[in-house]
Amino acid sequence: MNILIAPDSFKDCMTASEVASALSRGIREVMGDATIQVVPLADGGEGTVDAVIQATGGSLITAHVLDPLARPTDSFYGITGDGQTAVIEMAAASGIELLRQEERNPWITSTYGTGQLIRDALDRGCSTILIGIGGSATNDGGSGMAKALGIRFLNRGGAEIANGGGGLGELQSIDLKGLDPRIRQTRILVACDVTNPLTGPEGASVIYGPQKGADPDMVARLDNHLAHFARIVKEQMDLDVSGIPGSGAAGGLGAGLIAFLDAGLAKGFELVAETVSLEEKIMKADLVITGEGKMDHQTQFGKTPFGVAQLARKHGKRVIGVAGSLEEGAEVLYRHGFDLLLSIQEKPEELSHALKKAGSQLVRAGERIGRMLTLTR
Amino acid sequence: MNILIAPDSFKDCMTASEVASALSRGIREVMGDATIQVVPLADGGEGTVDAVIQATGGSLITAHVLDPLARPTDSFYGITGDGQTAVIEMAAASGIELLRQEERNPWITSTYGTGQLIRDALDRGCSTILIGIGGSATNDGGSGMAKALGIRFLNRGGAEIANGGGGLGELQSIDLKGLDPRIRQTRILVACDVTNPLTGPEGASVIYGPQKGADPDMVARLDNHLAHFARIVKEQMDLDVSGIPGSGAAGGLGAGLIAFLDAGLAKGFELVAETVSLEEKIMKADLVITGEGKMDHQTQFGKTPFGVAQLARKHGKRVIGVAGSLEEGAEVLYRHGFDLLLSIQEKPEELSHALKKAGSQLVRAGERIGRMLTLTR
Repeated sequence: MNILIAPDSFKDCMTASEVASALSRGIREVMGDATIQVVPLADGGEGTVDAVIQATGGSLITAHVLDPLARPTDSFYGITGDGQTAVIEMAAASGIELLRQEERNPWITSTYGTGQLIRDALDRGCSTILIGIGGSATNDGGSGMAKALGIRFLNRGGAEIANGGGGLGELQSIDLKGLDPRIRQTRILVACDVTNPLTGPEGASVIYGPQKGADPDMVARLDNHLAHFARIVKEQMDLDVSGIPGSGAAGGLGAGLIAFLDAGLAKGFELVAETVSLEEKIMKADLVITGEGKMDHQTQFGKTPFGVAQLARKHGKRVIGVAGSLEEGAEVLYRHGFDLLLSIQEKPEELSHALKKAGSQLVRAGERIGRMLTLTR
Repeated sequence: MNILIAPDSFKDCMTASEVASALSRGIREVMGDATIQVVPLADGGEGTVDAVIQATGGSLITAHVLDPLARPTDSFYGITGDGQTAVIEMAAASGIELLRQEERNPWITSTYGTGQLIRDALDRGCSTILIGIGGSATNDGGSGMAKALGIRFLNRGGAEIANGGGGLGELQSIDLKGLDPRIRQTRILVACDVTNPLTGPEGASVIYGPQKGADPDMVARLDNHLAHFARIVKEQMDLDVSGIPGSGAAGGLGAGLIAFLDAGLAKGFELVAETVSLEEKIMKADLVITGEGKMDHQTQFGKTPFGVAQLARKHGKRVIGVAGSLEEGAEVLYRHGFDLLLSIQEKPEELSHALKKAGSQLVRAGERIGRMLTLTR
C-alpha cells in the first residue's frame, strides 16, 4: 500500500514536517510493509520554508539582512532539492514578530530585508522565487524590497527618500535603471491568500495598519502615501496597481512585487503544491492523509487540507483528514473529498495539556490509521 | 457485513443501551446495508437490569418492597425476553443510594427487600435468578433476604431477631422449614466481582462497613456478629461460609445466598454474557464493537470490554474498542484481543463539556467506524 502523508502544521504546536513524520512513525509500527511518502505542506505563511525544504529534500539558507528597522539580523529562506526554486517568507526578514510591541511603526519600517533575501537567491542561481507574504511589519508598498534590488526612489531634490510608509510621501520619481537584470530571467511567484487592494477602505493601511502600530491619523496618512506611490508608478510604468486584488497584501509589498518584479500572485497552497509536485505524488498514492491543528467548516474555504482533498478527489484517491480539534460542522467536509476525519484526542482534557501531548498522540493516531487499514484485510 | 455492538455503559453519562444505539445509528448512516446487532452489556452492577432487558427484549418489572430501613418503596428488576431468567440488582431494593447520608446505619439496615424481589420473580415463574450484589446499604449476612423467603432467625426466647447486622448478635437458631419450596427448583446465580470473605480483616464489616455508616466500634461489633452468624450456620447446616471468597460481598449477602439459596457465585460479566447469549452472537458477527466510558490498562483485568474481546478472539473476530477516555497505557489492550481503540473525543475540552456531548459524539464515532470499514473497500 502506497500512503501519502501531506499535512499542514498544527499551529502553535508542531510543524507540518513533525506532524507528517509522527503519523508516518505510527503507521509504520502497524504496517511495516507500507510505502509511505511524507510531504509536509503549508499555505505560504509561517512554516512554508520548512515544509518545502522537508518535502523536496532542500536546504535552509541563512542570510544577513536588515530587519524592518534597518538593523542587521540573521534571516533565512529555503531552496528546493533541485536547487531551482527559492522559497522566502517575507516575515523572516520584514515580519512584525521581529519587533517588540513598542518598536512597531509602519511609518519607518521597510521591506528592504526581503529584497536582500531575493538577491541572495539570485546569487545562488535560483530560477524561480516563491515569496510568501504574511505577517509583515511594513507599509512601504514594497519600495524597500525594490531598493535592495537596485531601484531608486527619489524625492524632489533627487535624493533617496526615507525608509518606510512615511518616506513615500515625498516620492517624486522612481529610477528603475539599476534593477538587478537577473530579475527579468526569474519567475517570481507570490503566495497571497488575501485580496485587499493597495489603498482605500479595504486597503493595506486601513485594514492592516493598526495591528502594525499605526494610530488612526497615521493610517490616513499612510493610505494617502500609498495612493501617491501608486500614481507615480502609474505615470512612470503605465500600470495601475492600486486596485489589483492582493496588491495591498503585506503593506503593499504585493503591489511592489507586481510592479517592479513582474510577479504573479496565486493562492499559497497552489504554489506550494506545485513546488513540491504534490499532484504527481498523489497520483502515485493509494491513500492520502492530510490534516491541520483545527478542522471545521471553514476548512472548505481554501485551507491546505481542503486543497489536498480536492487534488486527491480529482484522481479518485481516498482521503483521511487528521486534526487536533475536529470542530462541530467539520462533517461538511465529507461532501468535499474527505472520506474520514479523525481527531488525535484520546480523552477530555484542556487545550494546554493536549498541546503538550500532540506528538505522542499523532504517533498513536498514525498507529490507529494503520490498524484501521488492516482491520478489513 | 454483520456487526455486533456490545458495550458497557459510559459511567455517569449514558447507559449501555444508549451507547449501543448511538453507535448503531452512526454506522447505519454510512453503511445502510450493514446487519447490526445491539447487545448492551453490564458487569452485574448498576445498569445490569437495563442491559439484559434491552439485549434480550425482556421486560422491566416493578415491585413494592421494603427498603433497607423497612419503609415501603417501589423497586424493580428485569425478566429476559424468554421469561425464564430474572435479573435483580440488590441495590435496587437494599442499596446505599436509597438512603440519605444520615440514614446510613448497617446496624439496622436489612436485605429484606432483595428477598421480596426474589419472591416476586418466583411468582412470575422464573427458573433462573441472576442477582448482582453491589452497592449495598446492609451488613446482615443476607438474613433479611432469607427472612423474606420464609426462613426464621430466632433468639434465645424463640422470637425473631431484630433487622440488620445488630440483630444477628442475639441469633440463637435458624428455622429453615418455612423456606419457599420453589427455591429448590430455581437456579440462583450471583454476579460477584469481589473476593472478600465474610469476616476478619478483609471481611464485609471491616472493608465495607465504614462506607455504610459504621464507626470503628460498630465495625468491630458487626464483624463479631457475622462470625457468630457463621458459627450458627455451620452448626445447623454443616457449611462454613465464613471463608468463601465473595461471601463477604454486599454485607454478607453473598454468604446468605450461598447458605440458604444454594447460590453459585461467578464473575458478573460471565453471567451477563451467558444470559444474553453473547458468545453465540459473537460467532455470527464479522466484527465486534465494544467499549466503556474509560479504557486503560486496568481494562485488561476483567472489565466488560475485555471479556467481550476475549470471547471475540476465541472465535477469530476483529474487535474495536470505543471509549470516552482512552488513557495512556490502553495500548496494552492491543495485545489482548483488541484490534483498534478509538476515543469519541473530537477536540480538547473539559470533562464536564465532553459528558454533555457524548451522545452526539458516539453517533459520529459510529459514522467514523462505518467510514473506516468502507475506506478500503
